[in-house]
Formats: sequence, C-alpha cells, structure tokens
Amino acid sequence: MSVTRNFVPPPPGKHFERRVPEGDTTERYVCGQCGHIHYTNPKIVVGSVVVCGNRILLCRRAIEPRKGLWTLPAGFLEEHETPLDGARREAMEEACADITVDALLAIYSMTHISQVQLMYRARLDKPEYAAGPESQEVALFAWDEIPWDQLAFPSVRWALEHYRESRDLAAFAPYSNPTA
Amino acid sequence: MSVTRNFVPPPPGKHFERRVPEGDTTERYVCGQCGHIHYTNPKIVVGSVVVCGNRILLCRRAIEPRKGLWTLPAGFLEEHETPLDGARREAMEEACADITVDALLAIYSMTHISQVQLMYRARLDKPEYAAGPESQEVALFAWDEIPWDQLAFPSVRWALEHYRESRDLAAFAPYSNPTA
Repeated sequence: MSVTRNFVPPPPGKHFERRVPEGDTTERYVCGQCGHIHYTNPKIVVGSVVVCGNRILLCRRAIEPRKGLWTLPAGFLEEHETPLDGARREAMEEACADITVDALLAIYSMTHISQVQLMYRARLDKPEYAAGPESQEVALFAWDEIPWDQLAFPSVRWALEHYRESRDLAAFAPYSNPTA
Repeated sequence: MSVTRNFVPPPPGKHFERRVPEGDTTERYVCGQCGHIHYTNPKIVVGSVVVCGNRILLCRRAIEPRKGLWTLPAGFLEEHETPLDGARREAMEEACADITVDALLAIYSMTHISQVQLMYRARLDKPEYAAGPESQEVALFAWDEIPWDQLAFPSVRWALEHYRESRDLAAFAPYSNPTA
C-alpha cells in the first residue's frame, strides 16, 4: 500500500465536497447541504518499552498488519484517556502486564500515516505477563536476544535503541525520529 | 457547555449505530449497512511559549472561544504534519512570528475535551511579529506584566509557569498537568 502526503480519505457522507472553507488555508470535507466541516487530524499512538530486570517485553502480533512479527505494547489513544493511562491499558490488553511508567522516552512523528507516537519507558516489577487477544506470544528478551530482523515497525527499533541510550538517565528530553 | 467523560459525538451518518464491535472493548459508531467502524480519537494541539529577550509573546484572541483573552500561539496539528512544524506554523499564522523551537516543554492531557497538548519552548530572535487573522493583538510581556487574570485557558498559565521553572534547564523531562 502506498500512502503519500497527498492521501485524501474518502468523504464521510455523500453530500461532502473537498474545498478550503472560508477563513481556512487547508482543504477539508465540507457538507454541501449544511456547511458542516469534517475535520480529520493525526492520531496518537501510545506505547512503551517495558523492562523486567534487564530483559525487554515484546509481543508477537496476532493481527494484521505485520502479523507474526514482534512489537512493543502500543495502540491508539482512546477518547477521554490520558496518554499514560493509554500506555498502561495497551500493556494490559496486549501483554496482560501491569506496568509502571517511568518516563516519556520518545515522540515519533510518522507523517505519511499521520500518527504521533508517544513512547514511554516502563518497568514490570514481576515477570507476570501473558498473550492478550492481539498477541500470539509475549516474551522477555535480553538485549542480545531481541529478534532484530523480525520487528514489526521501524519505530519499534527506534524505541529500543533510544531506551538503551536513556537507560542510565533519570531526567532527559524525549527522543525523536532518528535523522537518516 | 458541559462536556463530560460520557460525551458521545453525533453519528457521522444516519446508518451509524453506537455499539461495541466484535473483538473490541469500546463503543464505536458502526455502519448498520456495511459494518464500517467510524473511529474517533483525541486531537493533538501544538503550541509554544515564545521568548524574545526576557519577554514572552502572547496573542489576544480574535475568535471564539475566549475571544479577547490572551493565549499562546497554538492550534490543532494538521494531517501529515510533524508537531514541530505545527508549532512553527501556528506561531506564523497567529503572530507572524518565525520561531526557533528549543525543547518540548510540556504534554498536557485535557481528557474532558479529548485533547493532548504538546507545548514547546521557543525563541524569537528579533522582535518581529504582528497579529494574524485569529489574533486581535500580539505583544511581548515581561513576566510581571503578563495579564494573569485575562488568560484564555488554564493550560496557558501552566505552560507559562512551567516555562519559568525550566528556564535554566538545557535538557529536562517535559512537564505535565499540575496535580491539584
């Protein structure tokens, strides 16, 4: 699938047309009948690098995209939810893991899919976890055991590497997309 | 207007019904005809505390809500835009100010309106600015001149206070909502 910067989602209803509303500078879907503007905005993904002892928790995806590959517990922030609560919920849903969030590790901006990812650094005090419905398997990996060639998304690798850089830092500015 | 945690937006079309889709845990709008799920998610606001010398840039709002009150240059992140680019765009649109972003100052979570605010610390190298179409007036204020009783939103005060706390810090963890 090719997603470009010019990707325009389908109209939310048959009366909607694509145009720049008066006083705006960007094309929107505007209802030709009532003038209602249908705004679309980037979505927030929340997730975490969860550490137990010196091992890192990864989940093998049971769903598409990237089914069968390894990822961090992460997902879309829900309405009326704080990012911290969202990161904890995702760890519970995908890995049955009751995590303690320690710091904001990174903010990644995936402009081609209009996502902003807030990735936290977290710990699991006891090695208690299990595969949730979206995971085939959940496991703890020492750094050298991480299946680097079977990671689901580029930002999984970024977050792991940024976790390693930040490991001895108590307070730090969150990392962002690596520059190529 | 009262917005509660149970606020449900109006359906996106007449065939949509509110229910928990199979395999999900949250109520969504689902099309009764084709099963399409209409997801709604929190929106991202990007903005900045912009400093010129030792004065801070504020904009007096020309539009509702809070018309006539003072705010920081901030607004909704657009599709396919990085948060940094969004913060710079908002400063240009609202204050005709070409800012240099220095650090992520804070992440505020406004759950009652499903907003996550990314507020940056930025500087304006020359005092060149002007009111954009959404501002009645733009001005630089020394700390003691800030119109504290005429600020538009609680997070404007939070960001100003967090800016002051962070002023001498080069690298720091971003602030979050003050605990009451």
